[in-house]
Amino acid sequence: MSSAASTALTTPPLAQRLFAEFLGTAGLLCAVIGSGIMAEQLSGGNNGVALLANTLVTVFALYVLIEVLGPVSGAHFNPLVTLVLLSKTPSALDGRARIALFFIAAQLLGAIAGAWLAHAMFDLNILQLSSKLRGGWSADGSFSKWGQWLAEAIATAGLILVILRAPPGKAPALVACYIGAAYWFTASTSFANPAAVLGRMLSDSFAGIAPASAPGFVIAEAVGAAAGVLMSRWLEGSRPTGQA
Amino acid sequence: MSSAASTALTTPPLAQRLFAEFLGTAGLLCAVIGSGIMAEQLSGGNNGVALLANTLVTVFALYVLIEVLGPVSGAHFNPLVTLVLLSKTPSALDGRARIALFFIAAQLLGAIAGAWLAHAMFDLNILQLSSKLRGGWSADGSFSKWGQWLAEAIATAGLILVILRAPPGKAPALVACYIGAAYWFTASTSFANPAAVLGRMLSDSFAGIAPASAPGFVIAEAVGAAAGVLMSRWLEGSRPTGQA
Amino acid sequence: MSSAASTALTTPPLAQRLFAEFLGTAGLLCAVIGSGIMAEQLSGGNNGVALLANTLVTVFALYVLIEVLGPVSGAHFNPLVTLVLLSKTPSALDGRARIALFFIAAQLLGAIAGAWLAHAMFDLNILQLSSKLRGGWSADGSFSKWGQWLAEAIATAGLILVILRAPPGKAPALVACYIGAAYWFTASTSFANPAAVLGRMLSDSFAGIAPASAPGFVIAEAVGAAAGVLMSRWLEGSRPTGQA
Amino acid sequence: MSSAASTALTTPPLAQRLFAEFLGTAGLLCAVIGSGIMAEQLSGGNNGVALLANTLVTVFALYVLIEVLGPVSGAHFNPLVTLVLLSKTPSALDGRARIALFFIAAQLLGAIAGAWLAHAMFDLNILQLSSKLRGGWSADGSFSKWGQWLAEAIATAGLILVILRAPPGKAPALVACYIGAAYWFTASTSFANPAAVLGRMLSDSFAGIAPASAPGFVIAEAVGAAAGVLMSRWLEGSRPTGQA
Repeated sequence: MSSAASTALTTPPLAQRLFAEFLGTAGLLCAVIGSGIMAEQLSGGNNGVALLANTLVTVFALYVLIEVLGPVSGAHFNPLVTLVLLSKTPSALDGRARIALFFIAAQLLGAIAGAWLAHAMFDLNILQLSSKLRGGWSADGSFSKWGQWLAEAIATAGLILVILRAPPGKAPALVACYIGAAYWFTASTSFANPAAVLGRMLSDSFAGIAPASAPGFVIAEAVGAAAGVLMSRWLEGSRPTGQA
Repeated sequence: MSSAASTALTTPPLAQRLFAEFLGTAGLLCAVIGSGIMAEQLSGGNNGVALLANTLVTVFALYVLIEVLGPVSGAHFNPLVTLVLLSKTPSALDGRARIALFFIAAQLLGAIAGAWLAHAMFDLNILQLSSKLRGGWSADGSFSKWGQWLAEAIATAGLILVILRAPPGKAPALVACYIGAAYWFTASTSFANPAAVLGRMLSDSFAGIAPASAPGFVIAEAVGAAAGVLMSRWLEGSRPTGQA
Repeated sequence: MSSAASTALTTPPLAQRLFAEFLGTAGLLCAVIGSGIMAEQLSGGNNGVALLANTLVTVFALYVLIEVLGPVSGAHFNPLVTLVLLSKTPSALDGRARIALFFIAAQLLGAIAGAWLAHAMFDLNILQLSSKLRGGWSADGSFSKWGQWLAEAIATAGLILVILRAPPGKAPALVACYIGAAYWFTASTSFANPAAVLGRMLSDSFAGIAPASAPGFVIAEAVGAAAGVLMSRWLEGSRPTGQA
Repeated sequence: MSSAASTALTTPPLAQRLFAEFLGTAGLLCAVIGSGIMAEQLSGGNNGVALLANTLVTVFALYVLIEVLGPVSGAHFNPLVTLVLLSKTPSALDGRARIALFFIAAQLLGAIAGAWLAHAMFDLNILQLSSKLRGGWSADGSFSKWGQWLAEAIATAGLILVILRAPPGKAPALVACYIGAAYWFTASTSFANPAAVLGRMLSDSFAGIAPASAPGFVIAEAVGAAAGVLMSRWLEGSRPTGQA
């Protein structure tokens, strides 16, 4: 993804790249939210079965979307990924900052469109707001958000690390598998993407998140993305020189 | 698949290509319907578990069938895929239109054979008609077909997009993963194939569809295929020229 | 597998190839039977969940075993595969017939060892005989074996077709995925292997088969293997000449 | 992995390799324990569903971690893997013994960090000790550890065999798939890694192991690793000479 992304930032016409980012983010959110609705309807109250289905669908969808749209736009589908890849090329602060803004706008619009499309297919009201507060219960019985925020930071740090260090050609499979794992090992089921937070906020279903929980998630993701960049740099010096 | 398909349209003898299309569509429908029967028998009423099994089996079967039979016929197994790939080569309107008709006939016969084979293995009556009306309940409590039709259009649009834009050699895995995701994120469980509609119409089981629901599905799929071709063209201009 | 197998029939010392066939068949049966025991213990009576686990484990195990042991022996792990690959090289009827007999003996001993190893790990009696009659109930309420026999024939025909026509280097993934699909779409859960029938006969657990059901399975598998060879020949003419 | 590992033992600076081993082992244990906690919370008492989720997450996480960190440190994440790869190069007994000690220390610290991180995300007490005794009930009703020890020996022997004989570039997928299978076919759910034993000992959750059960597991794993090296040697002679 990193190499595909860097070439994509210069090659195809901007309109097509924005269309790819819109289409990919819409497809991702439609897959996440639609499969969440289907899974909840079918799994008879067993949320383990529902999240298994939700996980497999997200892995399959991410893999397909990154392979198919990566050659056009780099397949970011995520504002933090766009910002991280921009920051890697500091000379870009002339024209590419503007491109990044367009990318992020396309991603946010795509996320909204994906959520609405899922609702339309399942004969639900198009306009919804999630009522699902995201938090956890501490050992002392109080409702805590710290675990969820830590989870989002870790999820996003791992995602950025995988994107920045994926061997050539393997980013689609690695990103898809990483998110599939993170759905379960992070306490927040790993949103790791502010565009996904926006789309899920607009769906009162299995994959939703209440607006009140959204700002904390986005801030935690941004902190995690920065940590991912740092960890990648610590590992990066490893390539050139050899010494024991 | 697209490149494999275009070479396959000229290379092996027609009889073998038709046999491959027959065999592949029979295998696909036998896998879809057979695993649906087995899954419903074993999963104790938890349809989430049943659809998980049905999904995995379809992904595995599609991947294997496209890899093994693709070199012979292009592995269409789907009348709309045959028509789309034909329309991409307009010079084909002499001999290839005839070939397309034969392909579609082989696919439809294969779909019927696959359904009957599944029934024979599970000691069921060979000749059946599904009684499963496909629709959804709107917020106002009425039975609606619009969500299902939208779902089939989206499912087929995505399938055509994946086929037309799959990187060389990756179509088998991408098509299989796409269908695996679409089983859950579309409200219709993604038939996306008129031959599959025919085969499933002939099976009164988990994967079936009542004849009354079939025409709407096929029309929606055709509309979706056209949309997939359009979206692919919008993305296609991206390859040659580079400009921001 | 076919190409790996044909080179393997001439290259490494016979003792090592027999060890690889023994080890691989033992690993396969240990995986199938062991995961069946674990799955039945854990899945609380939901056989859909149990077969899902059994399926995933078999897919993973087959893929790993064929990749790792294929370079040594061709990774047949199945008497019918050995016989089919032998029949493809008629000049082999001097020394290779003897090798085939050794291969089959190693596979049968491996299957027994694998079943016993699974029992030992799960603190069960080593020596068992399955009491699980394999058949189905017809529409008229009678116990029928025809569906199971048809299922075994189809399962084995498909396996041989996949092995004979797998593109170079893809046999490990294709064979594994094929068996994963066939576990569900064939009514018999796809043994497709006389060595597997022997090993499973010796285990009174989820994956077992009663001795009374075994001969029918093996005969059906042999018929299916022959059908697989025939179908492969019908498709084979497709490679050399091109004509429409 | 073997080839990646041997080059990695000479190339990048030691600090980065140790950071990669720490990070990878922490990620692995965090994935195993975190997904175990999530799976137990969601699956409504169906341990089959919980272990399915735990399995998929471990397969995805292992694949990603080995692909991403392999180029830095060889991606051992396991003291026995480090010792086996060291013993393959006897000339290493000067500087590499010291490196192995550092590697193992990084792995053990990573395992602890991974367990604690999972607890922090799920708002649990950081410091825990597992109360889960690992054993099985024999046919005579007594609590036996022999099956579990045999299982750990087999699990580790298989892991070492896969690592030593994986074809170039395929170790990440093969190791991940192997562990996914071994979660179910070994009676112990396949720890196969003394660092994993340490991390799981510190978590009183689905994936935990009571300290009293830990020493037997580690000894069985060491015996299994030796058996894996032996089996690999028996197969190894197969490469050079050819004879039937």
